[in-house]
Amino acid sequence: MTLSHVRIVGSGLIGTSIGLGLALRGVGVTMVDLDQRAQKLAEDLVNSPSNASVDLVIFATPIGALASVLDSEYAANVKSAFMDISSVKSKVKVEVGSSKLPLSRFLPTHPMAGREVGGAESARGDLFQGRPWIIDSQGVDADVLASATELIELLGGQLVTLDSKEHDQAVALVSHLPQLVSSLLAKQLGGGEERWMELAGAGLRDTTRIAGSDPQLWREIITSNREALMPLLQALQSDLAQLISSLEDESAVAAVIEAGQKGRQRIPGKHGGKAREYTYLPIVIEDKPGQLASLFDECAKAGVNVEDLAIEHSPGQFTGLITLALSQDGAAKLSSHLKVQGWNVHTPRS
Amino acid sequence: MTLSHVRIVGSGLIGTSIGLGLALRGVGVTMVDLDQRAQKLAEDLVNSPSNASVDLVIFATPIGALASVLDSEYAANVKSAFMDISSVKSKVKVEVGSSKLPLSRFLPTHPMAGREVGGAESARGDLFQGRPWIIDSQGVDADVLASATELIELLGGQLVTLDSKEHDQAVALVSHLPQLVSSLLAKQLGGGEERWMELAGAGLRDTTRIAGSDPQLWREIITSNREALMPLLQALQSDLAQLISSLEDESAVAAVIEAGQKGRQRIPGKHGGKAREYTYLPIVIEDKPGQLASLFDECAKAGVNVEDLAIEHSPGQFTGLITLALSQDGAAKLSSHLKVQGWNVHTPRS
Repeated sequence: MTLSHVRIVGSGLIGTSIGLGLALRGVGVTMVDLDQRAQKLAEDLVNSPSNASVDLVIFATPIGALASVLDSEYAANVKSAFMDISSVKSKVKVEVGSSKLPLSRFLPTHPMAGREVGGAESARGDLFQGRPWIIDSQGVDADVLASATELIELLGGQLVTLDSKEHDQAVALVSHLPQLVSSLLAKQLGGGEERWMELAGAGLRDTTRIAGSDPQLWREIITSNREALMPLLQALQSDLAQLISSLEDESAVAAVIEAGQKGRQRIPGKHGGKAREYTYLPIVIEDKPGQLASLFDECAKAGVNVEDLAIEHSPGQFTGLITLALSQDGAAKLSSHLKVQGWNVHTPRS
Repeated sequence: MTLSHVRIVGSGLIGTSIGLGLALRGVGVTMVDLDQRAQKLAEDLVNSPSNASVDLVIFATPIGALASVLDSEYAANVKSAFMDISSVKSKVKVEVGSSKLPLSRFLPTHPMAGREVGGAESARGDLFQGRPWIIDSQGVDADVLASATELIELLGGQLVTLDSKEHDQAVALVSHLPQLVSSLLAKQLGGGEERWMELAGAGLRDTTRIAGSDPQLWREIITSNREALMPLLQALQSDLAQLISSLEDESAVAAVIEAGQKGRQRIPGKHGGKAREYTYLPIVIEDKPGQLASLFDECAKAGVNVEDLAIEHSPGQFTGLITLALSQDGAAKLSSHLKVQGWNVHTPRS
């Protein structure tokens, strides 16, 4: 089968991005939102009307708004397939289970798409390209699964099957816990003197970056997934208590840092493969337009691919340290190449 | 006065980097280390012998090794000035206070230099260029202060005066607490299924980056600064307990995220100024050599300065999302410029 008309209930970033992606591929789309302004914007952006009957209804509302639309959407589109896109899944299954929409007609899904905050105006049709898109297909009718799978593949998502409970545990660990820990850490900065903040380095910046996230978005995600989060927070609490009680014991402190190193090594590197061992090449650059361009130009000339990079700026003066993550060979090649060109290249480290 | 001969006790990264920086500026340097291999390497690298009497002795050993060298170094260089470079200061003052070296002859200092892990072989003479270099000058003789200040300025460090107790509180908050929190978070990953790790995004990677740090280095820093760390860890513990007890309360959860946002905003931006409001421009690039070069080339052509950047790779396929942090004007200018050139530029967000 081929999707001809998809109805998207919720015109935020995710809903509208799905609409844009489908429209680009010639699928008819109806955008719906309680907020008339959002709906109008999404309709204008997506602009792919259809008179065909609806094949697939996507719930792209906040979790809290789901209950209010389930029955009416099912009644109006009784032959359609249904799916959602919310970041917590067990709670959604409970909501659907207590509505008129049969669970066999509904596929719980979660696209792990890069969050660019902000409604229909931030939507892009390629938001899901190459990103994992989790589905829980247990007990779902084959035609519903086929429609949803077709949609995910059309949008370039990478299908990952996890049951809802496991999904919620996984995102609690790799996404929700880091959010809370970063927020709790950044909260502690409130107690420091302003002049201390001038001493902040890349470590503090990195650990607190996601503490800048939107409280309105996260309050719902955290509370909806509290069942999976609770044991993780309690394990953290227990580890923290133990650290506090053994803060003068060098071996106990080293054990915490070592356990952290091991945990960190579990995170896979680029392209979903195993964690790669990069070699890091530090280069001091002048902080003005054109320096990064020249540097990357040299990388291209040397035929070296930059795997990742970090920029650290010196306070009070206009030089900066850029650290490139490279393969070992790449680092050696680039280091020689840049030195010949007069760049201020430091010793690579792995 | 002008430094003619500096004796550096400890030939690790910091000690050897100081030696290199001084040698480049014509100052005589003697490198010392308990480890003969390290001393030989540092001597060969620095290679700036002197027959003049020693003006300044720098203790660049681990904190734990300090006690064993204080008396002998003072006895051998009784007219010299003395300073150290360790990352915890109160404990060092106590050590010196119970040695024969008078506190008036000793300046406690701490260069906040980018840590490239790894001994004399990783040393660079420009390691301290533009980095804050904290001193505690209280009760220190004017000639000692003058020698140390001359050294710091020679090496391009930015002099910051803080008393030792305040120094230890400041680094506990902006450096040691983030290290422990990152390690504790990464430790929790040990409890997750391997397939969950494939779902990790930039948030988890950033928050756990410094969890990769060296346990041998950190065990000593943490235990030496436990007095300043303890109240911070206890405040974190109390906030965590409160969060756990109110995990189903959306307002309580939102309050934590909001407090984190406020704390995060206290961290100053580039060049030590106030936190800047950047505009973030997302661009989808193909992941192959030359793409970043071309992109930065376009930034230069558009006359736009890149303030910061992040790269996120899509798992399983060879495209990547690069997000540039720019001024608002810069983002608008660059966005138009890149679109004309056919780049896949997304909507900027602030």
